[in-house]
Amino acid sequence: MQPHAENRARLKRRPLLLALALSAVAQAAPAPRPTGDALAQHGASAASACASCHGASGEGTVASGSSRLAGLPAAYLLEQLNAMAAGSRASAVMAPLARALTTGQRTQLAEYYGSLPLPGQPRGAIATGLDDRLALEGRWAQEIPPCVQCHGQQGSGVGNFPPLAGQGANYLAAQLHAWRDGTRRGDPLALMQKIAARLSEADIRAVADYFSAQPVPPAASAHGTAAAPAAHAPDAHGLFRPSDEPIPDTEFGKVVRFGRDVFENPGKYAARYVGNDLRCSSCHLDAGRRAGSAPMWAAYVSYPAWRAKNGHVNTYAERLQGCFRYSLNGSAPPLGDPVLVALETYSYWMARGAPVDPEIAGRGYPKPGKPPQSPDRTRGGQVYARSCVFCHAADGGGQRDNHGNPAFPALWGANSYNWGAGMVNVSNAAAFIKSNMPLSQGDTLSDQDAWDVALFVDSHERPQDPRYTDSVAHTRSLYHDRDDSMYGQVVQGYLLGSRAPSPGRRPPPTAAH
Amino acid sequence: MQPHAENRARLKRRPLLLALALSAVAQAAPAPRPTGDALAQHGASAASACASCHGASGEGTVASGSSRLAGLPAAYLLEQLNAMAAGSRASAVMAPLARALTTGQRTQLAEYYGSLPLPGQPRGAIATGLDDRLALEGRWAQEIPPCVQCHGQQGSGVGNFPPLAGQGANYLAAQLHAWRDGTRRGDPLALMQKIAARLSEADIRAVADYFSAQPVPPAASAHGTAAAPAAHAPDAHGLFRPSDEPIPDTEFGKVVRFGRDVFENPGKYAARYVGNDLRCSSCHLDAGRRAGSAPMWAAYVSYPAWRAKNGHVNTYAERLQGCFRYSLNGSAPPLGDPVLVALETYSYWMARGAPVDPEIAGRGYPKPGKPPQSPDRTRGGQVYARSCVFCHAADGGGQRDNHGNPAFPALWGANSYNWGAGMVNVSNAAAFIKSNMPLSQGDTLSDQDAWDVALFVDSHERPQDPRYTDSVAHTRSLYHDRDDSMYGQVVQGYLLGSRAPSPGRRPPPTAAH
Repeated sequence: MQPHAENRARLKRRPLLLALALSAVAQAAPAPRPTGDALAQHGASAASACASCHGASGEGTVASGSSRLAGLPAAYLLEQLNAMAAGSRASAVMAPLARALTTGQRTQLAEYYGSLPLPGQPRGAIATGLDDRLALEGRWAQEIPPCVQCHGQQGSGVGNFPPLAGQGANYLAAQLHAWRDGTRRGDPLALMQKIAARLSEADIRAVADYFSAQPVPPAASAHGTAAAPAAHAPDAHGLFRPSDEPIPDTEFGKVVRFGRDVFENPGKYAARYVGNDLRCSSCHLDAGRRAGSAPMWAAYVSYPAWRAKNGHVNTYAERLQGCFRYSLNGSAPPLGDPVLVALETYSYWMARGAPVDPEIAGRGYPKPGKPPQSPDRTRGGQVYARSCVFCHAADGGGQRDNHGNPAFPALWGANSYNWGAGMVNVSNAAAFIKSNMPLSQGDTLSDQDAWDVALFVDSHERPQDPRYTDSVAHTRSLYHDRDDSMYGQVVQGYLLGSRAPSPGRRPPPTAAH
Repeated sequence: MQPHAENRARLKRRPLLLALALSAVAQAAPAPRPTGDALAQHGASAASACASCHGASGEGTVASGSSRLAGLPAAYLLEQLNAMAAGSRASAVMAPLARALTTGQRTQLAEYYGSLPLPGQPRGAIATGLDDRLALEGRWAQEIPPCVQCHGQQGSGVGNFPPLAGQGANYLAAQLHAWRDGTRRGDPLALMQKIAARLSEADIRAVADYFSAQPVPPAASAHGTAAAPAAHAPDAHGLFRPSDEPIPDTEFGKVVRFGRDVFENPGKYAARYVGNDLRCSSCHLDAGRRAGSAPMWAAYVSYPAWRAKNGHVNTYAERLQGCFRYSLNGSAPPLGDPVLVALETYSYWMARGAPVDPEIAGRGYPKPGKPPQSPDRTRGGQVYARSCVFCHAADGGGQRDNHGNPAFPALWGANSYNWGAGMVNVSNAAAFIKSNMPLSQGDTLSDQDAWDVALFVDSHERPQDPRYTDSVAHTRSLYHDRDDSMYGQVVQGYLLGSRAPSPGRRPPPTAAH
């Protein structure tokens, strides 16, 4: 992961910057750290010392359910203090304490605890045989994404999505109850309120137990516990859903599992072929299983097929190559490469039981309705600020989790899909967004919003089309000659594509496999 | 096809040799040709001149339904004269004439007409829009193989299976009626009697019209009219059957069609990768559609899969490569080669509508029952002489049609599958034979017969295992260390594999694609 070191450092700074941009109190001048330290250890006027419940190092107290504060994002901590003072996060103990603090003191405390190192070991006993399916796989049939999709691998935290790893199970369960019962509010897009409302008591216990047992700070061993695909309820619309049979512990199963690992983290498991921070599951939610999110089982039963993009019949393996070249802005693994074989095998595994049918219901993204008005970039920017920025960041660069793994994909810029990708087609982006975004809230945006924000996203610079020939104008004439692509069009005086970063910035070290 | 010239010449001689071996009257010394000529043109004692009905050149008379004799196999003609004399082929006109001829005269006439050149043009009007499905595709759901499977491409004739091309439609229809009504008998294994009994009047007319319109001698353009897959009745056992939807006239359809062409004649359409005269459809009947005959739709939905043969997960494309290397005794087309893409696409086309399921009913060959007695080569040889020799020839070398295209596959020898092929497993050969042989008479052999003849076939020398290492003994220990393979075993004092021809005698001219 070395090539990413600089990038990661940049991303690490982003949560706070983002929080400052979003928070109404961000203009308060930060006090010097010693003040926060003194407040924490000794309290102030009507506020008792934080350390008395949260521990001398902010490590929390498992039994009492007082949370760990050390290493949580400062902006998140500040929001919590403000929310508890205002009552939008109900806490009988904390409300009077928070109200006793000035805005400046809250900021000082948030920065102090945010600066403390995370404890080195999990605080809960490491349990074995935990039910990690909801945490790792979610239950998309009920619009429950996996917790790790926002909170990072092993719950390591992503930007303003707080780390869950190593928090006490009682505390985690209490918070899920609070979201569910409405005694905790104010989360962006009401994400947690809506998700928590769909959880059973058993779900809450499983999730709380799982994350309390995860190590912090996490080692690089991170990804890939051998979790079985989640058991799915039959789809309400009669669409195919992959079996919930566990991946077998066989040689075949090993390849399926490796395919799933690549799918979830190609930058780690197929590093030589990947040139950005996207994951396969960035565009194919639920690890490629979700109907209407270009599920891989539907793609699998749709190939070989003729493609206009390259003018010949493509096998499934060749189709996968295209994803690496364009969407992942990398280079195509050679046919027969273990990465391609594993992805094909993982797709086949998911497709078991589906009919071979290029028109299978649930494939691709459902076409959104035509918008009442022509798509508009300005309106799209407003949608973005309202519904997308929290995860994808104001600069469109996405966010990594605290392990350094891609979490929220970059939507433009050097780290996003290149100008050759299918998502460059505004209609395609609108289709994906309408059905799937914001995460777990698909079909909540209007058709107009979906088209507007798709146009906004696709009107930004990104890596060059790898098929670039001669000039932007010529390349547009060859591959983009349609309203649906902004490549080669002028936006606010800027010719899109004209200063595009070179594509595929991580070519494989050797040409042949 | 140049590398086959010598081979073809050898095969051209075979029908007569075979006929001599089979015919009870073969010992009659052949008379000099002028005698046959004189008999044909002028008749003898009680027999009127053949030419008066069959034409001066043996070309036949379309209107009267008198058949073309020129260029038919001499052995076949002799059998017909004998049959008409004996009454097993009923003909009011011909019976007294045939009886008036001596055995010697019949032989002279047969040899005379057999030596005449085939007429250069079709005798019937070339009709367009003919229904060629039964002729080219058969209707396997009723155990009707395509006529061309035995009579050669375009009905050009294979050994003792007479040419049909350019015979008058009335004559052809009359013969099918005769087979069906039992007024013509004596065909090997009662093949034609059984098949004709399954034909409707419309079937008979379609077949007669089709073959009467085929050119003789056929040009090299031969194979591959764009016939749609035959319409199949739903399978009686509820097994999947490929759709009868015509292959579309699209770029995709072109690849499907090319795949079918390769499947039916790999030696022509994938020549550089093929080292023998087998066709894909030699082991996968009905062009890969037939359940219980290792249908390609079932294989398609069964891969990727782990294979013991090479110890890793194989994609469908890699599995196809194995067929070229072993069963076709050639070399593996590189991944992405148009031949592999087309075969995968053709398989996908057939699989549409099937569930993705590695255990799909109808896959592979049904396992035969264990035989009451241990399989025995001597008994197997008797089964072979009784039920197999007519098509596969006494030397196991198979037969080509009069176009030079492979018709009946070689079962051993230099032109057969090599020692690495799956059919080398006696159990596999027994399974195929039990369910599928003799052609259109599957499941008529006893389990004992199937095992015996499988052992007999697989106890002959064939091209070397391409994985050969060091010695036959060592190669056996690596790849054949089981009772099921005769490789490296001693049969009648001969060590099988010890003088095996080199495998893959047609390597591709260049290494890479």
